[in-house]
Amino acid sequence: MKTEKPKGTRDFTPEDMESRRHVEKEITDVFERYGFRQIRTPSFEHAELFEIKSGEEITTHMYAFKDKKDRTLCLRPEETAPVCRMFAETLRTRPRPLKLYYFDPMFRYEEPQKGRYREFWQMGLELIGPPGPESDAEVISIAYESLKRIGLSSALEIGHLGIIKGFLEDRKIPEDTQRKILACIDKKDTEGLKKLSTEKTLFELIGLAGGKEVLGKAEKHLKNCDRSMKALSELGEIISILDLLGIGYLINLGIARGLEYYTGMVFEMRVQGLGAQNQICGGGRYDNLIGLFSGISVPAVGFAFGFDRVVEAAQFQKIKTPVRGIDVVVAPVSPDVKKEALKIAATLRKDYVVLFDLMNRKLGKVLEYAAETNARYVVIVGSKDLAEGCVTLRDMKSGVQKTVKIEDIGGALR
Amino acid sequence: MKTEKPKGTRDFTPEDMESRRHVEKEITDVFERYGFRQIRTPSFEHAELFEIKSGEEITTHMYAFKDKKDRTLCLRPEETAPVCRMFAETLRTRPRPLKLYYFDPMFRYEEPQKGRYREFWQMGLELIGPPGPESDAEVISIAYESLKRIGLSSALEIGHLGIIKGFLEDRKIPEDTQRKILACIDKKDTEGLKKLSTEKTLFELIGLAGGKEVLGKAEKHLKNCDRSMKALSELGEIISILDLLGIGYLINLGIARGLEYYTGMVFEMRVQGLGAQNQICGGGRYDNLIGLFSGISVPAVGFAFGFDRVVEAAQFQKIKTPVRGIDVVVAPVSPDVKKEALKIAATLRKDYVVLFDLMNRKLGKVLEYAAETNARYVVIVGSKDLAEGCVTLRDMKSGVQKTVKIEDIGGALR
Repeated sequence: MKTEKPKGTRDFTPEDMESRRHVEKEITDVFERYGFRQIRTPSFEHAELFEIKSGEEITTHMYAFKDKKDRTLCLRPEETAPVCRMFAETLRTRPRPLKLYYFDPMFRYEEPQKGRYREFWQMGLELIGPPGPESDAEVISIAYESLKRIGLSSALEIGHLGIIKGFLEDRKIPEDTQRKILACIDKKDTEGLKKLSTEKTLFELIGLAGGKEVLGKAEKHLKNCDRSMKALSELGEIISILDLLGIGYLINLGIARGLEYYTGMVFEMRVQGLGAQNQICGGGRYDNLIGLFSGISVPAVGFAFGFDRVVEAAQFQKIKTPVRGIDVVVAPVSPDVKKEALKIAATLRKDYVVLFDLMNRKLGKVLEYAAETNARYVVIVGSKDLAEGCVTLRDMKSGVQKTVKIEDIGGALR
Repeated sequence: MKTEKPKGTRDFTPEDMESRRHVEKEITDVFERYGFRQIRTPSFEHAELFEIKSGEEITTHMYAFKDKKDRTLCLRPEETAPVCRMFAETLRTRPRPLKLYYFDPMFRYEEPQKGRYREFWQMGLELIGPPGPESDAEVISIAYESLKRIGLSSALEIGHLGIIKGFLEDRKIPEDTQRKILACIDKKDTEGLKKLSTEKTLFELIGLAGGKEVLGKAEKHLKNCDRSMKALSELGEIISILDLLGIGYLINLGIARGLEYYTGMVFEMRVQGLGAQNQICGGGRYDNLIGLFSGISVPAVGFAFGFDRVVEAAQFQKIKTPVRGIDVVVAPVSPDVKKEALKIAATLRKDYVVLFDLMNRKLGKVLEYAAETNARYVVIVGSKDLAEGCVTLRDMKSGVQKTVKIEDIGGALR
């Protein structure tokens, strides 16, 4: 009988998991140094949670199913909406800023391709409470520092949705059209955009990208537009903090993000070596989403790493994973010494990773197994040695064997 | 708008996650000392994977849904079958024994009750390759040691399905009836069992529980039944190793396990404080399951912890979780020193968990926040101090404040 894993999903081997755990440990250590603490929401939610504000890009690709009470559930396609729901249900009375992070699988029913899976992992954080540019800058620096920690070089682009949104509001564009315009900007769909708007200024604004001079250029178009001017000044403050912290960036006013809930600063990070799916991180400010669930207005800003892509980029850039290898294989050479050998294995295991030969194999086969699994040493337990309180210790790298007192094995391994 | 988490699911708060990560770390460290390495299979599989051998208890409670190609997928209700599937697809050529562990959410559509959730976590391992009692004993000792490591005392019960299965085969009971009999034994459904069999010996066998003397008592009933006698002798060898390792146990021939794929040794562990849902671990030998997927016969043995229950038991037994608290809150007292304060925070963060006040609050409010979040110190950055290259360091426990040179803050925190 032949059964395969479902299309678009993956099995992770021990080596895969070791890389993944290494990256997880390094990045969460960075998060935790900023005071973020891990939470976890359910793998599935009521579908309506995502239908409110996640945007079409997400809701058309959800894994949805009915429960026995005919309510529609779905596997979570992203975790910001669930965190806001959890905030409203459980965390609203906590002191703010509330700093939360998560690392969980997400699910989207899309055509699989390189770097795009139906089950994929996101590691993200949400900073709930503070409204100002300092918190935008903090969140960006955490993302930047996380990638730096694992040795990945990346390109950071920052924009601010308040700039375009302010402009569209000023021109009295209906909200529904605004949403469509932002979707076209996100997809770089210039043809679609042309059908929705003929504003030359809009096209000029979203084409602005570069250093600090971009702010001045944008200002010229937006003089009478208060919301846009406020957004420009916020963006200016954010980048002045990034300058202070030595973080390089490109300002790009054409960043719109696929998620509808963003309201202010937005940013994306890209790395080399992933081809078309090179976006590794995305985030921004969403000041209205929590209010929608909790009835109290609470500003928030966050981001998520496409964790699988981070790991792939690290592998592409040949970043080494420290691995906890096998220290010792304990091999009894005959059945009569098995129990003594078991005791030796149990003692060594207090300090080392120890395999006991469970296959009753001849010594030659055990040595082969030890070599294949990259074990450092083999402890050979024979009755003659044992009679003198000794075992034979074989260094698998050099092939050198020596006789060692049982109580000295631990020392000899150090 | 009000949205709640789905029935039978949970949100895990930062404190929950800290306990869970602590238990995870301790147990996986034990697993890894025996050379087990983590793998991960997809959250959903083709439903037929579980329909083969997982047993009715599981298949009637699966979360199943159709994909767009009309194939039935389901959220994994357990992970042993997926590991066997993965072995067949990806791992069959690896050196054996192959030692694998997993820690993942499982899903069962059951009525929620205390200790029973629709999404729950299992942490388990599979030892693939060796057939003998040494590997059964190794797996049991890992389970025992894992609970001991986190300070949980538990009761271990061991049985062997070969004893009952051998007896039923000997009496020529059809396979389908055998399966029903084992299901009744598992559920302790004596009435149901009486309808299926009137064999007095069967009832005596499954009633046998106690110390080593149980083996002798069973033997009297099974003299002419080869498979049962072999099973008894295997069980004898397993417990002689447990004796050697100082692991206490109760032999219980009435253990049948709800999963149909078990073929030999089976075991369960229970703890105090969880009420009816006190079974925390279950496992056993399943020598035919891998063959079903891979076409090559490979013996295997494994177990899984009900991870949520392990954590609940640890909380009930008041086992402490070490927590990485907040070391420092950096508070600029006026806007003009904000940038200097940001730099100080960035430097301290190399060694400590550091919060920067992001809310532009008055000092009194920041101190309140620091107290609420149990921060150890507050670094107060004011322009007067700064002019002399200093800050004020407040010890939140004692309330004592002192002036410290910026370059000495790190030292003062130690």
